[in-house]
Amino acid sequence: MNVFIIGLGLIGGSLAKSLRKSGFADEIIGFDRAAENLSFCIENKLIDKAAEVLEGAKIADIIILATPVDGILELMPELLNQLEEQVIVDMGSTKREIVELAAHHPKGKNFVAAHPMAGIENSGPSASFEQLFTDKVAIICNPEKNARMPLNLAKLLFKALNMKLIYMDAIEHDKDLAYLSHLSHILSFSLALTAYNVDDKERNIYNLAGGGFASTVRLAGSSAAMWNPIFLQNKENMIEALDLYISNLSLFKKHIQDNNKEGLNQLMEKSNAIYKIINQSL
Amino acid sequence: MNVFIIGLGLIGGSLAKSLRKSGFADEIIGFDRAAENLSFCIENKLIDKAAEVLEGAKIADIIILATPVDGILELMPELLNQLEEQVIVDMGSTKREIVELAAHHPKGKNFVAAHPMAGIENSGPSASFEQLFTDKVAIICNPEKNARMPLNLAKLLFKALNMKLIYMDAIEHDKDLAYLSHLSHILSFSLALTAYNVDDKERNIYNLAGGGFASTVRLAGSSAAMWNPIFLQNKENMIEALDLYISNLSLFKKHIQDNNKEGLNQLMEKSNAIYKIINQSL
Repeated sequence: MNVFIIGLGLIGGSLAKSLRKSGFADEIIGFDRAAENLSFCIENKLIDKAAEVLEGAKIADIIILATPVDGILELMPELLNQLEEQVIVDMGSTKREIVELAAHHPKGKNFVAAHPMAGIENSGPSASFEQLFTDKVAIICNPEKNARMPLNLAKLLFKALNMKLIYMDAIEHDKDLAYLSHLSHILSFSLALTAYNVDDKERNIYNLAGGGFASTVRLAGSSAAMWNPIFLQNKENMIEALDLYISNLSLFKKHIQDNNKEGLNQLMEKSNAIYKIINQSL
Repeated sequence: MNVFIIGLGLIGGSLAKSLRKSGFADEIIGFDRAAENLSFCIENKLIDKAAEVLEGAKIADIIILATPVDGILELMPELLNQLEEQVIVDMGSTKREIVELAAHHPKGKNFVAAHPMAGIENSGPSASFEQLFTDKVAIICNPEKNARMPLNLAKLLFKALNMKLIYMDAIEHDKDLAYLSHLSHILSFSLALTAYNVDDKERNIYNLAGGGFASTVRLAGSSAAMWNPIFLQNKENMIEALDLYISNLSLFKKHIQDNNKEGLNQLMEKSNAIYKIINQSL
């Protein structure tokens, strides 16, 4: 199988390593706007050769879109327009807009809307590794819109990555992910901005930043280029989630202000109960 | 050395295990208001015997206060009143109020205000383990208020726990900890409350709660009994930190609402830069 990976960052690079190892890909062609990503992947033999978008798409059996989600929306129309028998699979963290776009195109049945739930706070192909996807969940959205063969090919792709496949509606996907992934990133970005001022040499950060802080601030290392279009494509859900989150924080603040021990206890005990349920699912 | 541990939760239980192992404690006496904690510690030989607060304090060489911080404030006056040659060391996460209380007592020089920065989201003596403190930071506040011998004894205590000692002013401690520890807990409690409603069977939490969410929500498992009085004793700093945090979240929300890609990028890139500095300190 000839695989064309568009976008050679953490996801694209890890895909290349894993798909070659598993034998799914016989040949891997790659494209990235950033020359340094492309040359890194060639020098380190992650890909066999480079090609421009439409040129690579023409010779590939399967085209994988692993760019930030704004790049996916931008590239899809021209990719669909020139599509013959190839399959396109995307790896984006938002799904509603891309599924709508494909639904209005005659070749849209050959596009499988997917979201492999795998990532770390580091980015770029130098951070990529073969096991990134292993045992993680991959979501395929609205498989009923796909022709049978493209869907089967995508299923085999995620099987080759050793992922657990689930199916969702794109609208439901974007809403759930706002609360269970995207919000966590804003929370962590904001914590870094709150906890430390680069110009402030006073805070004893080298001694005091411990385990609890470390885990809540970790996602502040995440790529701006990746997360910017996710937040904007998932705008309505993000605003709803942020409003609810800020109202919960404000409740904590109010109870602290009022010395309301009972109110604080109720919030924390409810949170403990939810955490127990969440923890069973992790 | 005869050690009396008041409060046999995660901290008290781990202290017992570690101080016995290191040889610092020859005999360990324990007290806990909760009968199940006390019997757990006796049955599992974490402590040698149980004693009431004033009785245990009388026969101990060193009294360790490992209760939630409201318990520490409550017990201190009677402990100081009956103090002869013993040393008291507390393990509380807030320090300003307790240091002020001790400063007004004639025996206050024998009280060492400490904060071992070690903890996990699980609580109770059954979660305790010998290595909890190893290589972590212990803070002693306002050592200039101590007589020489109590201070030296406390230093040896933290040395026996294999901790790195630093010294701070209590007011500075409480402010820095608000931003670098206490805020993280409220953020995590609030995330659990926001992300999942116990009555809401719709959210696909079993498949979608991944790595980023897991690390930001982990502290939602923390003990309400421990954190309630920390938030209230550190009230002014918590409100300041929460206000700044909410204003940073609101900036993200505003930029999303306005489709302000540039504004979002600036926030995330600043956050990335801060994370780099933080990450070097972890």
